[in-house]
Amino acid sequence: MAEKWEEIDRYARQWIDEAGKRIRASFAKQLTVEAKENPNDLVTNVDRAIEQFFAEHIRRQFPSHRLLGEEGFGDRIDALDGVVWVIDPIDGTMNFVHQRRHFAVSIGIFEDGIGQLGYVYDVVFDELYAAQKGRGVFLNGEPLGLLQPAPVTESIIAINGTWLMENKRLDHRPLMRLAKEARGTRSYGSAALELAYVAAGRLDAYISPRLSPWDFAGGMILIEEAGGMVTTLDGKPLDLLGRNSVLAAKPGVHEEILRRYLHY
Amino acid sequence: MAEKWEEIDRYARQWIDEAGKRIRASFAKQLTVEAKENPNDLVTNVDRAIEQFFAEHIRRQFPSHRLLGEEGFGDRIDALDGVVWVIDPIDGTMNFVHQRRHFAVSIGIFEDGIGQLGYVYDVVFDELYAAQKGRGVFLNGEPLGLLQPAPVTESIIAINGTWLMENKRLDHRPLMRLAKEARGTRSYGSAALELAYVAAGRLDAYISPRLSPWDFAGGMILIEEAGGMVTTLDGKPLDLLGRNSVLAAKPGVHEEILRRYLHY
Repeated sequence: MAEKWEEIDRYARQWIDEAGKRIRASFAKQLTVEAKENPNDLVTNVDRAIEQFFAEHIRRQFPSHRLLGEEGFGDRIDALDGVVWVIDPIDGTMNFVHQRRHFAVSIGIFEDGIGQLGYVYDVVFDELYAAQKGRGVFLNGEPLGLLQPAPVTESIIAINGTWLMENKRLDHRPLMRLAKEARGTRSYGSAALELAYVAAGRLDAYISPRLSPWDFAGGMILIEEAGGMVTTLDGKPLDLLGRNSVLAAKPGVHEEILRRYLHY
Repeated sequence: MAEKWEEIDRYARQWIDEAGKRIRASFAKQLTVEAKENPNDLVTNVDRAIEQFFAEHIRRQFPSHRLLGEEGFGDRIDALDGVVWVIDPIDGTMNFVHQRRHFAVSIGIFEDGIGQLGYVYDVVFDELYAAQKGRGVFLNGEPLGLLQPAPVTESIIAINGTWLMENKRLDHRPLMRLAKEARGTRSYGSAALELAYVAAGRLDAYISPRLSPWDFAGGMILIEEAGGMVTTLDGKPLDLLGRNSVLAAKPGVHEEILRRYLHY
């Protein structure tokens, strides 16, 4: 059993490494940028090519595995039985286009709905955050410690400013109160990276009103393995087959945000 | 004249390099963290040691130069005649404490109030943004191009979520409208780094209601040298002897924010 995951882990790392090389090489070439659901929801030829790269390799090496991906090269998935790879080839496409940094390859690998392997790869700074269930979280091979509880008043919360203003996705008022009482807020523009930062203890919480499975799958596995919690904003488990609100945090911070600010 | 600035530039780079080494070495040692004006305004023994390091070297090498610094090792300055170094030894101390990344050494060197040399050094990623008046901006020795105009709808604005909520420093309503109409918002928690990112074209604008001279001096010189603009939120020049609101942006974005959102 363990051997099976060792093998999958070995291939996943090899493909992530190759994907990183291809993405860095793409910086020298012309980028094709298109809008998806709205003018600020961007996709590029590189997002598509990298997802296709993973899809081809997974199908050849592990024909029984399935792929849930952002860009349409995956399978139509309505149940989580067997092994499912949940992949965002470039999480933070707007940063990729505008900054050529602050984006990540995100992969979560699940068996019967249970997270087994998680990866967030910061391509430009060559930082691979990786977790295998029961074995802890590693950054470029170095173990990251278990997350320790902290109070909100000493916490840095990752939340985009958009969700602190009146908006149609959620009630911004409790989050405003949270932002005022926390030590500070940050927003990096890549859910996968921000979740990896929570797993590494650099951020104490991450909040979003709506993420797709590929946005959170890799980071969720990292955080849970680091001793943190990932739920919806009403404290429920995330659904890997749909969109979810997300509250990811260190142990004490997670409870305090749910109880004192969101009232669950 | 040019030779004089070549010499100052050479020493500044040498000391920045040494400061970076000392800061990275400090990661292995115990950090002493204190609060300044409020519980979230942090200072550490490393901020102080690094400013003292610069103060001692500047005084020994350039006895006629003066220093305006954040941590109290500088001179009392009430006029800008002669050469003045404006230094933040660690801009983004909260990030330094919580993340051990996303902070910078920031230096602006002025003569009779005119910016001549600007530096923002991202210590952990070893990225030195540097400008000499009239010679352009460089990242680790590679020239960065001149900034090109862009519309707000295609812009990424760096603004902390705090300033999009009701607050006592400024009217948040026009900034809310700006945040909604822009392509996206980000907040990295270091003014110096965010200004360097504007100079490098990775962010299109940076907004803060209140910065001290050491927060913006280095970044302002970078941005102006890159063809961008740095003013207060009502379009006036920044005062190097006091606190200022700051609007730093690419050419087109700067005008559009002033005219369409802030009504100047």
